[in-house]
Amino acid sequence: MRWWGWGEEGRAPALGPAALSFLADTLEIAPRASPPVALSRVALAPSRLADATLARLREILGDGAVRADHGERVLHAAGKGYPDLVRLRAGSPDGAPDVVVLPGSAAEVAAVLALSARESLAVVPFGGGTSVVGGVAPLAGSHAGVICLDTARLDDVVALDAESRTVTVGAGLRAPALERELARHSLTLGHYPQSFEYVSLGGCAATRSAGQASSGYGAIERMVVGLRMTAPAGELVLAPLPASAAGPSLRQTLVGSEGTLGVITELALRVREAPRELIYEGVFFEDFAAGVQALRELAQHGATPDVARLSDRPETRMSLALAGSGGVRGALGRLYLGARGYRDGCLAIVGFEGEREEVAARRRRALAVMRAHDGLAVGRSPGEAWRHGRFAAPYLRDELLTRGVMVETLETATQWSNLLRLHRAVGEAIERALRDGGTPGLVMCHVSHLYETGASLYFTFVARQREDDPIEQWRAVKRAASDAIVAGGGTITHHHAVGRDHAPWMRDEVGDAGLSALRALKAELDPAGVMNPGKLLDD
Amino acid sequence: MRWWGWGEEGRAPALGPAALSFLADTLEIAPRASPPVALSRVALAPSRLADATLARLREILGDGAVRADHGERVLHAAGKGYPDLVRLRAGSPDGAPDVVVLPGSAAEVAAVLALSARESLAVVPFGGGTSVVGGVAPLAGSHAGVICLDTARLDDVVALDAESRTVTVGAGLRAPALERELARHSLTLGHYPQSFEYVSLGGCAATRSAGQASSGYGAIERMVVGLRMTAPAGELVLAPLPASAAGPSLRQTLVGSEGTLGVITELALRVREAPRELIYEGVFFEDFAAGVQALRELAQHGATPDVARLSDRPETRMSLALAGSGGVRGALGRLYLGARGYRDGCLAIVGFEGEREEVAARRRRALAVMRAHDGLAVGRSPGEAWRHGRFAAPYLRDELLTRGVMVETLETATQWSNLLRLHRAVGEAIERALRDGGTPGLVMCHVSHLYETGASLYFTFVARQREDDPIEQWRAVKRAASDAIVAGGGTITHHHAVGRDHAPWMRDEVGDAGLSALRALKAELDPAGVMNPGKLLDD
Repeated sequence: MRWWGWGEEGRAPALGPAALSFLADTLEIAPRASPPVALSRVALAPSRLADATLARLREILGDGAVRADHGERVLHAAGKGYPDLVRLRAGSPDGAPDVVVLPGSAAEVAAVLALSARESLAVVPFGGGTSVVGGVAPLAGSHAGVICLDTARLDDVVALDAESRTVTVGAGLRAPALERELARHSLTLGHYPQSFEYVSLGGCAATRSAGQASSGYGAIERMVVGLRMTAPAGELVLAPLPASAAGPSLRQTLVGSEGTLGVITELALRVREAPRELIYEGVFFEDFAAGVQALRELAQHGATPDVARLSDRPETRMSLALAGSGGVRGALGRLYLGARGYRDGCLAIVGFEGEREEVAARRRRALAVMRAHDGLAVGRSPGEAWRHGRFAAPYLRDELLTRGVMVETLETATQWSNLLRLHRAVGEAIERALRDGGTPGLVMCHVSHLYETGASLYFTFVARQREDDPIEQWRAVKRAASDAIVAGGGTITHHHAVGRDHAPWMRDEVGDAGLSALRALKAELDPAGVMNPGKLLDD
Repeated sequence: MRWWGWGEEGRAPALGPAALSFLADTLEIAPRASPPVALSRVALAPSRLADATLARLREILGDGAVRADHGERVLHAAGKGYPDLVRLRAGSPDGAPDVVVLPGSAAEVAAVLALSARESLAVVPFGGGTSVVGGVAPLAGSHAGVICLDTARLDDVVALDAESRTVTVGAGLRAPALERELARHSLTLGHYPQSFEYVSLGGCAATRSAGQASSGYGAIERMVVGLRMTAPAGELVLAPLPASAAGPSLRQTLVGSEGTLGVITELALRVREAPRELIYEGVFFEDFAAGVQALRELAQHGATPDVARLSDRPETRMSLALAGSGGVRGALGRLYLGARGYRDGCLAIVGFEGEREEVAARRRRALAVMRAHDGLAVGRSPGEAWRHGRFAAPYLRDELLTRGVMVETLETATQWSNLLRLHRAVGEAIERALRDGGTPGLVMCHVSHLYETGASLYFTFVARQREDDPIEQWRAVKRAASDAIVAGGGTITHHHAVGRDHAPWMRDEVGDAGLSALRALKAELDPAGVMNPGKLLDD
């Protein structure tokens, strides 16, 4: 992956001239190109690790698995959040690990953790490195240095139990590699976060990731049936059981622990038969509220699409303006919608996957529900366009950054009865913060990840990047949005995790006693406090 | 509820003459009637509480909510496990609480916990008192006495959010009362454990209860969207969010905590539309393995019945012998099965609930799957018989106890690929232990609670009760079964919880590091260790 952004070199740009002029008109962006600096110009402080420590790491892991060169340190210096990219592109990341290690087994992970505790070195677990909340920031906390523990070599498919529909994998295995392996057996995990192309499965579990198809397949927390975690205090081994009443769920305690308790080394995941039928289509609603009611009924009447996302008006407008990102394209399409009275409507994408007969029955019921809310089915082309571009946003972001545009996403979830209120409150908070910072912008949102009791809200905002202090510009908006989420009764994060960016709001989320409970758990499993300091719990 | 058993006085006996002669023949039971002693003959040690403590409790709660009379102490002396009932009926329970308190608010609960910590008194939370694993045993641990904290007065329906399909209730509310209230709004929780008639919802959550319809509605852990727990260290308040990625799941940590961390005072539960269509029916399989394969495919192909239970041969034979408990009744029915080659087959009960069209579609697919495994649909009468008798087993148990029969159930869950192996291993272990104890018996089992990756196994065994030491007789079998479960890769409990009886196997379930993590959590939330000592964690 590009050290300063997403994807590999040589990918064609996604922003066409129409999109650029739309952005320029809307955001009053002066034409300005800010390409990233050259890799060699990225400034890092020298590694703080003693030679003896490096030598000891090489003894444990072998020479090739201990890397302290400039390139590796830069590659592991940050995740892929907006402030990460702004800093990286400017050649000044917020620190870098002193060394990157790539253990090849749980035993090697344990040895690294033991050394870290002994020498007071922070350990930052690193899977795909795709965190957008500072989850892999190389923070030393009170320690003398930072070891980045890259799980890339823990990438085995350990066992496939097709009868039980479970697969056991090393935590470092990437999602696409797993899907390729499963496809050979006509199986699928069905976990498609936007970061799909690069995420590790251990990272997904550690951060409670939810894929775009989570309405049907469930978030990763529903998929993890067993796991192994190497913590400084010992190894936790949870067998791949379908369910248990044996006390508090340790599975659901380790899932979401974000590297602060230990390193997930292995996972047993529930898989499903690969779908034989896939139908993705677009449905227009006259307004956002009508669409929300329709999605709610789908989720509450056993007709949930596997993918369901409803854009609000600004997002619908934007996606119609941006070619290739899921809109109803072309003058003809817009004319049609206008003629039917949906000119300023809201576009939903619904996707159904599974066996032919089951999909047909569910889809029939779903379309009936949506029609009852004046939903206008506009065919498969918007659905296919969305599917085609479902992983495109991070590439787009790189281009926007190059053009001096701030672009960020954030998300929450709440119960249905609170959804419209929270949508309004958070949207207004973001708009106000942007305006107050002197850079009025566009705020868009979609509902996705349906549950019977509520859903997620996913906000995107774009504005002219302030050249003087883009990080403080971003932070002010992030703070305003998070405060509004907490005040409005949403969760501080539905699927991006807590990391560094949301840690200040954990007290609002779980209260004093909840925080104390999580801290006690950490103190037990990580007595020296070396695991991913500064993340999750705001120390 | 009867202090020595299940249900209220005056219920007609369920064991007919045919059933009795079947049992007598099979178990060589001498006709012996052992009725319970009179309540006045139940021997309790005097209350250990100082008068000043009782006075203080009365100040906090009011006179009527502090009870130390013989009758209340007996009623709260034990749960409803086999050893509990054996001891109670003999008039010698294994201790009793020194006082029973009935707080009316979370603040009153907090005041009781504060007093308990100060005066070193154990607190045993008590909901419906239906634990079958010693969960409400009045153990003092290292403390000076036992306060039984009965949640009966925390029985409000606090809020109904019909739009979000959630209801917020006091933890002491009984399941039937909630269903009555929900029915007024055409809603249902759908949680039907065998103990349905008496369970409190807080108790269900504290023990990870799974209802008989959990294949469709999910176990209680799927229903709890929010909760409040009063712990000695403070109150934990988790909002009714549909999902969150904000760190480890505290919800799933408090669910299943079995009163060892604090008292659940309030719950927000996901509810569903009351089903308009209910179809319960019987399907015969030629053997257990064929039935298991069919159930597995149902769960893995989106055709899961809401209720699904497949009896093995011994259980099928027994249920055909016992009138009114779910069999295909009558000579005609047996003749029919014999003629079709299913004389020694295995009976499955499948139940579908929901909207007419959805039920019809799902049932059609389910029947096709079962037919493909030579399942023979035998109509609705076995299904209706099962539904009619679904809560009858505890009444039956009382009658068997009166006739000198030991009857006990235990359960586990494992992945599909291990299910038949575990079924055999546990069944053999129970049979062997019964034989070794000189009381060969009948061991029966059914598969239920379907998941995509596995299912539960629910064993019932009956044997002649040994008069000399019935508790040791029971303990030997329980130990053998639990050892076999652990050795065979099952969970030590799928839905009965850990309590006192399964605590010795928690190390096998979660390992040393897992146990340490749970203990650390407890030490933080309950620093004086007063909450339900001797349960869950084997101290």
